[in-house]
Amino acid sequence: MVLPEKTVQRLSRYRRLLSKYQYLEEPYIFSHDLARLLNINPVQVRRDLMLIGSTGNNRKGYSVVELIDMISKAIDPHEGLNIAVVGFGKLGQAICKYLSDSHGFQDVVAAFDIDADKINKTFNGVTCYDISKIPQVLRQRNVTTAIMTIPDDYAKEICRILVDCGVKGLLNFTSVKLNVPDGVFVRDFDIITSLEVINYFGCKPS
Amino acid sequence: MVLPEKTVQRLSRYRRLLSKYQYLEEPYIFSHDLARLLNINPVQVRRDLMLIGSTGNNRKGYSVVELIDMISKAIDPHEGLNIAVVGFGKLGQAICKYLSDSHGFQDVVAAFDIDADKINKTFNGVTCYDISKIPQVLRQRNVTTAIMTIPDDYAKEICRILVDCGVKGLLNFTSVKLNVPDGVFVRDFDIITSLEVINYFGCKPS
Repeated sequence: MVLPEKTVQRLSRYRRLLSKYQYLEEPYIFSHDLARLLNINPVQVRRDLMLIGSTGNNRKGYSVVELIDMISKAIDPHEGLNIAVVGFGKLGQAICKYLSDSHGFQDVVAAFDIDADKINKTFNGVTCYDISKIPQVLRQRNVTTAIMTIPDDYAKEICRILVDCGVKGLLNFTSVKLNVPDGVFVRDFDIITSLEVINYFGCKPS
Repeated sequence: MVLPEKTVQRLSRYRRLLSKYQYLEEPYIFSHDLARLLNINPVQVRRDLMLIGSTGNNRKGYSVVELIDMISKAIDPHEGLNIAVVGFGKLGQAICKYLSDSHGFQDVVAAFDIDADKINKTFNGVTCYDISKIPQVLRQRNVTTAIMTIPDDYAKEICRILVDCGVKGLLNFTSVKLNVPDGVFVRDFDIITSLEVINYFGCKPS
């Protein structure tokens, strides 16, 4: 069964919250607590968890450890999430650090740049390679997801290379619209355009 | 006239590209060149520019400077874009740097954090204030847009404060769904959940 995108999104958020919760003493959580913490309707939470086969216990709620495990089985690809960051400037490095500080359901295994000062150096445990090494490193490290934090001018070309190397998921921080074949999933994170759009709609005199 | 969101998005991207182009010798650009560089249909480009009253010249194309000016008039709020970054960790600082390195149609005028080591210090020209100073600084600097790069646990409370202080646009990097009143525009940038979603859909065995 393929889950709807919104459901996968919420399951990912439940797991992130649960993974913090698992360090507390309490091994159970109620759906209405999950709902409250994430600002979601509790009926929605129960429906999502039922979809992945988890029904909880009326009296005690859901087992936190069991729920994390069930969500992982439902939404993680079998191979694990090996990620590459392409463009290792300030933004690329910050995202890398942010991901390594998070609860680690994903793993940045390589970075790429053209800057000789960065190449073959390791930052926060991630080695930066010359951009020409993309095909080789992606194959070796079994990377299927890439984060693109490069200048717009290189976006189309780098996207083509990444897709040719088997990348199936792309987080695109450039402002270029990427054409990808069926089966490749792109999510756009164009910060500047988003700011301009929210400004346009948020600040329009009504 | 209120422009459709997708149009505002594309106009923002045209302007960003044009603003680089304006440093070149050539004062004119053809719609098909804009289209090619951004990977958009040229008919779409001409339609968007016609919407803001720009028709160009069959022989020479569009004047770059004029086009930047017309786009700015169409999509920028009158007051200019004063932005605050709330949560000045690695990610907040990187976004700040990224925006200041960009072509500057927006301006980060303040940052906020709870870390005493950061407060009252200036990074890349942006001063970091204690989070309790939000109401005061936002009023003084006429901030209407905020970027939230704080831990999830604080998201709801900080969002409420920002909206109470007149923020009309929010770029949300937390994973918490924000409830905002009508007239406030939120754009979600949940990196980890997006990675998990693109992994789910990109890597599913077909």
